[in-house]
Amino acid sequence: MPLRCMTCEFRLKTKFIYTGIRVKDLDKSVDFYSRLLAMKMVERSEIPAAGGVVVSLESEAGGFQLELNYYHESSRFNTKYASGEELDHLAFQVEDMDAFLAQAKNAGHPVVAEIKTEKSRWAYIEDPNGIWIEIVS
Amino acid sequence: MPLRCMTCEFRLKTKFIYTGIRVKDLDKSVDFYSRLLAMKMVERSEIPAAGGVVVSLESEAGGFQLELNYYHESSRFNTKYASGEELDHLAFQVEDMDAFLAQAKNAGHPVVAEIKTEKSRWAYIEDPNGIWIEIVS
Repeated sequence: MPLRCMTCEFRLKTKFIYTGIRVKDLDKSVDFYSRLLAMKMVERSEIPAAGGVVVSLESEAGGFQLELNYYHESSRFNTKYASGEELDHLAFQVEDMDAFLAQAKNAGHPVVAEIKTEKSRWAYIEDPNGIWIEIVS
Repeated sequence: MPLRCMTCEFRLKTKFIYTGIRVKDLDKSVDFYSRLLAMKMVERSEIPAAGGVVVSLESEAGGFQLELNYYHESSRFNTKYASGEELDHLAFQVEDMDAFLAQAKNAGHPVVAEIKTEKSRWAYIEDPNGIWIEIVS
């Protein structure tokens, strides 16, 4: 019986390519991420196999994508939108934290928590689905 | 009263920098993401202000980070780990889908759903917290 290489066994390369959140109201979430968080829409597609719509967004600086997943009422994935703990937060870097937080507050998204240490400061606002958005400078 | 520029108002630049998931068992989640999903650990820090530990991981190809958030029992963030809908899935690209899914199954993470269209195929496995991981090739 050959020796099993426990390390080799798990070295198939992978690449983390995007995060998909489920949204209650597609328009509200597109508005939040594309206007307040200044992301650009990369793609919007109906996915008949899943019974829903996906909208892919990325920051102007490019990079990683955020996918919004909306399921039609007829979709098998359109379960009750329960609030859970799996998604701790999505983090966004901003140039001017106070200016950003002021515009977020104006848009109806006030700071819900803030953590300050000697070196750092993180503030949190909620997206239209109740997802915590971490703002760092 | 000045005219308000609804577009300008929201054009403060931001950058989506990482996704933070909350984990029930830090060691199990580190094992899953660093071994099965072949991510490398970038940082591990105690965050006394939040009463927890964060572990940052990224794919070997670099890019976007996944942050694992673990809260100690004494933390105000250590609420009951309810299962919710906010995080639809985290997507990972693999070179050889069948080989990857075989090793995932061997590691105790069988496919829980699969969507096939004429052009595409997406398979889902669950991480140790019940988070759906989308595997695409």
